[in-house]
Amino acid sequence: MSRTLVHSFSISLDGFGTGEGLSADAPFGHAGHRMHTWMMATRFWHQLGVVDMGDASGSEGIDNAFAERHEHGVGAEIMGAGKFGPPGWQDDPDWRGWWGENPPFHTPTFVLTHRPRPPLEMEGGTTFHFLDASPAEALDVAREAAAGRDIRIGGGPTTVREFLAAGLVDHLHVVQVPILLGRGVRLWDGLEGLEQQYTVEAVSSPSGVTHLTFTR
Amino acid sequence: MSRTLVHSFSISLDGFGTGEGLSADAPFGHAGHRMHTWMMATRFWHQLGVVDMGDASGSEGIDNAFAERHEHGVGAEIMGAGKFGPPGWQDDPDWRGWWGENPPFHTPTFVLTHRPRPPLEMEGGTTFHFLDASPAEALDVAREAAAGRDIRIGGGPTTVREFLAAGLVDHLHVVQVPILLGRGVRLWDGLEGLEQQYTVEAVSSPSGVTHLTFTR
Repeated sequence: MSRTLVHSFSISLDGFGTGEGLSADAPFGHAGHRMHTWMMATRFWHQLGVVDMGDASGSEGIDNAFAERHEHGVGAEIMGAGKFGPPGWQDDPDWRGWWGENPPFHTPTFVLTHRPRPPLEMEGGTTFHFLDASPAEALDVAREAAAGRDIRIGGGPTTVREFLAAGLVDHLHVVQVPILLGRGVRLWDGLEGLEQQYTVEAVSSPSGVTHLTFTR
Repeated sequence: MSRTLVHSFSISLDGFGTGEGLSADAPFGHAGHRMHTWMMATRFWHQLGVVDMGDASGSEGIDNAFAERHEHGVGAEIMGAGKFGPPGWQDDPDWRGWWGENPPFHTPTFVLTHRPRPPLEMEGGTTFHFLDASPAEALDVAREAAAGRDIRIGGGPTTVREFLAAGLVDHLHVVQVPILLGRGVRLWDGLEGLEQQYTVEAVSSPSGVTHLTFTR
């Protein structure tokens, strides 16, 4: 059965999924890359080839084991407008996402926005579709496109929170990074009692992060 | 050298140190006992004798190892008014704290309140002193009373946060419990970048909680 998954979603110790001051130069605002250094050290990331890592091959421990799950069995991604581009990307008809011509999704990818535009077919199997839809409606569309495979909810924090609040997430993997951002967008707001719907596990990594999994 | 410590301070996954609706019947509000079940299962807690545990002897793993540190080398405690009693205890001249005649502090214990009253000498070495003072002033007074031993900052979340913000805490042990309270008083607000002053460790326990230590 097709499940709805959140994989490797990083938050700060004080619960922020992104910082303040998002821009084309700072996709995570004042958080910078600090939320994702744990992932950039993994073999999974090095093999993505997003950045030239030279000879380093990356870690193969717990962080990598979780990071590798990103691609397993996923047939479509849904993301919020804030993940697709910096504030105001809707006014730039040439904006094609942060990821270059071969984005790391390799599936139909649905971008939730109140200002849809025609689909963008990229290299490597990623096609961006733009939808003005509720979480439940978007999930129906994505499930059709995924042809029985799982749906990844890719973020940002507002989008993940909305899918959680609507009861639409079957498996949630959050990575808590031991920094205090102080400001930004919180993941957990308004989700009192969420843990009662899931089996929750926590496991800390030698890298300093703690992996939290919610499974139902 | 006398250090300032926070031990076994429980917070929810969404960062609340206490819930909403605090009262004489609900010291932690809607959080109930859920924040402290990890500690109540330990040998440390069973030996305190606060509640009759029958024959159960309690766990002796990681949760107990941390819980036992509560008493080591501490010569005085400082707590906020909100820890000493329910809202409005200042209007009840007979209020003597939550803990009965033999409170589990066994040292001079300084209660921060804008309405000080005369000291209360209890059994077992605990004397409550009532201070209208800033964190730094209270620490000076407590340090004198502790005669070279450490000072414990006992909570609640507002008091711990104020001592952290003032740079007065040398060692912080926070226990993150995998529940979402949704509302209450947050520990981490306004502490952006706090981790830069400390060495931070995280370790998860089989009980489900994650122990976070900040040491400088």
